[in-house]
Amino acid sequence: MEDGLLRITKNGRALFLAYDHGMEHGTEDFDDASIDPQKILDIADSGYFTGFICQKGIAEKYYDRNKNKVPLIVKLNGKTNLFKGQDPYSPRICSVGEAISLGASAVGYTVYIGSAYEAKMLFEFSQIERETDRAGIPLIGWMYPRGKAVKGREHSKEILSYGARVALEIGAEMIKIPYTGDRESFKWVIQSAGRVKVVVVGGEKTGEEKFFKMVEDVLSAGAAGLAVGRNIWQSGEPIGISQKLAEKILESC
Amino acid sequence: MEDGLLRITKNGRALFLAYDHGMEHGTEDFDDASIDPQKILDIADSGYFTGFICQKGIAEKYYDRNKNKVPLIVKLNGKTNLFKGQDPYSPRICSVGEAISLGASAVGYTVYIGSAYEAKMLFEFSQIERETDRAGIPLIGWMYPRGKAVKGREHSKEILSYGARVALEIGAEMIKIPYTGDRESFKWVIQSAGRVKVVVVGGEKTGEEKFFKMVEDVLSAGAAGLAVGRNIWQSGEPIGISQKLAEKILESC
Amino acid sequence: MEDGLLRITKNGRALFLAYDHGMEHGTEDFDDASIDPQKILDIADSGYFTGFICQKGIAEKYYDRNKNKVPLIVKLNGKTNLFKGQDPYSPRICSVGEAISLGASAVGYTVYIGSAYEAKMLFEFSQIERETDRAGIPLIGWMYPRGKAVKGREHSKEILSYGARVALEIGAEMIKIPYTGDRESFKWVIQSAGRVKVVVVGGEKTGEEKFFKMVEDVLSAGAAGLAVGRNIWQSGEPIGISQKLAEKILESC
Amino acid sequence: MEDGLLRITKNGRALFLAYDHGMEHGTEDFDDASIDPQKILDIADSGYFTGFICQKGIAEKYYDRNKNKVPLIVKLNGKTNLFKGQDPYSPRICSVGEAISLGASAVGYTVYIGSAYEAKMLFEFSQIERETDRAGIPLIGWMYPRGKAVKGREHSKEILSYGARVALEIGAEMIKIPYTGDRESFKWVIQSAGRVKVVVVGGEKTGEEKFFKMVEDVLSAGAAGLAVGRNIWQSGEPIGISQKLAEKILESC
Amino acid sequence: MEDGLLRITKNGRALFLAYDHGMEHGTEDFDDASIDPQKILDIADSGYFTGFICQKGIAEKYYDRNKNKVPLIVKLNGKTNLFKGQDPYSPRICSVGEAISLGASAVGYTVYIGSAYEAKMLFEFSQIERETDRAGIPLIGWMYPRGKAVKGREHSKEILSYGARVALEIGAEMIKIPYTGDRESFKWVIQSAGRVKVVVVGGEKTGEEKFFKMVEDVLSAGAAGLAVGRNIWQSGEPIGISQKLAEKILESC
Repeated sequence: MEDGLLRITKNGRALFLAYDHGMEHGTEDFDDASIDPQKILDIADSGYFTGFICQKGIAEKYYDRNKNKVPLIVKLNGKTNLFKGQDPYSPRICSVGEAISLGASAVGYTVYIGSAYEAKMLFEFSQIERETDRAGIPLIGWMYPRGKAVKGREHSKEILSYGARVALEIGAEMIKIPYTGDRESFKWVIQSAGRVKVVVVGGEKTGEEKFFKMVEDVLSAGAAGLAVGRNIWQSGEPIGISQKLAEKILESC
Repeated sequence: MEDGLLRITKNGRALFLAYDHGMEHGTEDFDDASIDPQKILDIADSGYFTGFICQKGIAEKYYDRNKNKVPLIVKLNGKTNLFKGQDPYSPRICSVGEAISLGASAVGYTVYIGSAYEAKMLFEFSQIERETDRAGIPLIGWMYPRGKAVKGREHSKEILSYGARVALEIGAEMIKIPYTGDRESFKWVIQSAGRVKVVVVGGEKTGEEKFFKMVEDVLSAGAAGLAVGRNIWQSGEPIGISQKLAEKILESC
Repeated sequence: MEDGLLRITKNGRALFLAYDHGMEHGTEDFDDASIDPQKILDIADSGYFTGFICQKGIAEKYYDRNKNKVPLIVKLNGKTNLFKGQDPYSPRICSVGEAISLGASAVGYTVYIGSAYEAKMLFEFSQIERETDRAGIPLIGWMYPRGKAVKGREHSKEILSYGARVALEIGAEMIKIPYTGDRESFKWVIQSAGRVKVVVVGGEKTGEEKFFKMVEDVLSAGAAGLAVGRNIWQSGEPIGISQKLAEKILESC
Repeated sequence: MEDGLLRITKNGRALFLAYDHGMEHGTEDFDDASIDPQKILDIADSGYFTGFICQKGIAEKYYDRNKNKVPLIVKLNGKTNLFKGQDPYSPRICSVGEAISLGASAVGYTVYIGSAYEAKMLFEFSQIERETDRAGIPLIGWMYPRGKAVKGREHSKEILSYGARVALEIGAEMIKIPYTGDRESFKWVIQSAGRVKVVVVGGEKTGEEKFFKMVEDVLSAGAAGLAVGRNIWQSGEPIGISQKLAEKILESC
Repeated sequence: MEDGLLRITKNGRALFLAYDHGMEHGTEDFDDASIDPQKILDIADSGYFTGFICQKGIAEKYYDRNKNKVPLIVKLNGKTNLFKGQDPYSPRICSVGEAISLGASAVGYTVYIGSAYEAKMLFEFSQIERETDRAGIPLIGWMYPRGKAVKGREHSKEILSYGARVALEIGAEMIKIPYTGDRESFKWVIQSAGRVKVVVVGGEKTGEEKFFKMVEDVLSAGAAGLAVGRNIWQSGEPIGISQKLAEKILESC
């Protein structure tokens, strides 16, 4: 599986452009430009990214495996934010076989660690993994603490290191996980993940300085890279930021 | 799949006669004429429609693929309005294979966006899509906001654009969606749907002037057409209205 | 499928002897004679009935496809009346394949229209139908309004016509449905069923005059016949009544 | 299937030694001797029994189909008495195929008549029956009234005759059912079971005289025999009682 | 199956190093050394253990069947301690086939005896067992009393002997079970398990003297050995303790 990661990394590092916000957040994150998948795919294809993350439908209608150069990473599950139970569950929307036929180099699945539906998602993760193992493509675990049991602790060292560890124990090849907020605690998250590579969630649009400080901190803590969305396509100069990120993450290691 | 849409569109536009009200609403929408599927199928077969929407049983007993000219669109799920939980779920009643063997040119599946059972319907939608992809016929998403989470916002720009976006991300070829009520907000719904074609729900019987104003507005906002039921068969002159609609929607583009 | 109905009808009419009361009601409907399936099967075999309705186990132990002349109709689901949730569900107890191997000419499945479990039963109905379509035997829908949502309206025109319509839309070949109580409203039920044949539930033992008045009314409303149990085997002269019913229903049309 | 019963009956009568109490009741029924499955199997093998009832694990580790002479009856479901919901459900623990490969001559499945989970158990019973029919071994229904709906009526004529009837209608070959307590009411239970053979639950250890009175009563009511556990292996002289029972039940008919 | 146990026992005794705490407890049990699976696997490979217990992901990324000498035991289910419902359920995360392909000599599955989800786990246990039987590797039952029904009695003789008995009746080859706390009561637990081998849970780090007293007591009560984690890798000299344990358990019998 290690080999599989070569397709979505460069020098062992990863920089992904994430674009599954329409499904997860609705259309309010977007403006007239960013609502258009083609425009975002053009940014992803700029040469600065090692992966483009989207849901199946966008891949199907916009991504052309013969034309696009950025590797495709298909999210296999997803949900809206409309129904707000105390504890979230994210259903499967795409199979491993479909993702591969769309040209995916890797697939992702969200586990809401701490949710009342955690057991269901762990089980589905394990079923998907059987397929990715057979198919020889990496399965990336979106390890997100959610639900009543972890409310207020979604960014704590304790909970995020637990999430990273679970990913190791259930067999993920890579994880996408939120940042604890400080370098020291995040080191422990990365130790907990063992041989599983750690990619950090970009999160909401923040000031550029603050954002690059975070990037530096997570890299020096041992992270393999970043999955970024709004900080690119809500920025005034997406290509400029992308280039700077690629330099920081992919080249200086 | 784009090719599949050719069979249920004309000049890229769609005009569907919908007749699944018996299942969804009971028999109160009907009179002595409209209760009879044969009479409605005769209207659908008038040459003004690019599709006739019904449940499996009506197709089985009335639609003759060798005789009827209007393309058949089979709804794959459905429910009654008798049991009123806070959040609706609509079970599968027909398989893709059955629909095809009945002569269907396309199939439809309702997703109640915002319902507590949304995850279940998204999952089933994705399973059905695997079959329609294999079979090469289009899957139309009925994207209807329902349930406690979206109560009172069933026609809002925010929620309907979310529904349209979900349809794009989960891989629908076309959607049937309610109208926001004004042209500007509906443009955003259509932008959110990206490359997915948008067909607007006709809804309750309204005055003819108001109805044709709506048709004009949604078309100029970028909609591909209309799915209409009661405004045809509850009208005094169904063929007359059908002809006028066909002119507006299918010819003047 | 129409052809399939020929085996359980005569002149397009149906008279079924129903004997699944042990499962549905317990043993209190029975006396020392009617508790014995052999005795009831003997009545069913008298030549006056176009079908004998029972559960799988009784068919297995009493019905001999080489000896018995009355066509066998096997109920595929059933439940006891012991556990009384607000909303009933009736589980599958027999498969289509088993029913056929027991000699069944048709099968029946109960849908409790209005129940909170309606979606589950509609789904199961549709699965069974796929099998009966393949096997070429008719599926009869027992369309019974039940549950909190329809409480007190189990015999209303509105609800029973809805049930009949659902049967048409989901693809039943025939329905067994309670009587509204008057001829005019029942006409609407039959119109709602379209090309689906309607058989009326005999119900509790009533006086002979009242009973035959009901028979006349439903026939003149357009019903295809009757499924009768207690009014036969709780009667003092079951063969006599059977003969009279057969004359009224099967011969005078 | 009738033929299948020949292997676990003698002169049409049955005497089973039941030993699934560890699963159902915990270890408190046992003493230093009866805790040991080997000791109980030795009693079962004494020649006085037409069947030995146990769960899969005990059969696997103690029963030797080449050495033991008593026919094996494997219980297919079971539960502990630790979790006490209002309404019990007993999960499947062994498949028909496994039971057969362990040397079983028959299998048993508990249906808690009246439980909120009754539908689930009826469905599973029917699935198992499909397998036993194919395999040609008898399925014995443990028909036990349980749950809030029948609380206090677990030994009533009404409820037990209902249980017996359900077993007939769902296709059991034989039932194991509690005793109503008097001969007259139990006759009705046996009539309700029709051609299904009725074996009575031995129940708690009682005085020998009372116990043999019960045996006489159920036999004269028409029962096929007894399934006995504690009245054998909690007795001071298990072989003596076994011999007396065998004489009463198996020989004097 | 007995033969299968030879691979994870020595002289009929077992000493397992358990390392699934990251999944079950989070990362708080660990320090900078014990967080690293490689370091723990090195201890396991010291020659003093007859098995190394871990989840699938750790086996996949650290255990090398060609290099490591300690037999691998893969836990097939697991859960976090974040979501705390009253009654726990532990989902399947690894299949028997995956475990075998990772080099497993045995597999383990947790049944929370007394939980409201007990039925679900008993069913899954039985399904897994079908696969282990076919594959010819032992299935070890983690028999842990949990949930409201047994709260406060998790170490009682009554409940633990019940758990041991259930394991026998459902067909485990070996169990891992907590200690009652005294030798006499634990003898009854072992008698209840019959021919199923009993391995005792090491539990929290305790003083060495107390720990070895416990080891002696359970062995003299008839246990086959110990599964130990924190008392090894939270100890200052893990190899020293391991050696002493191996002498006590594996050699002096």
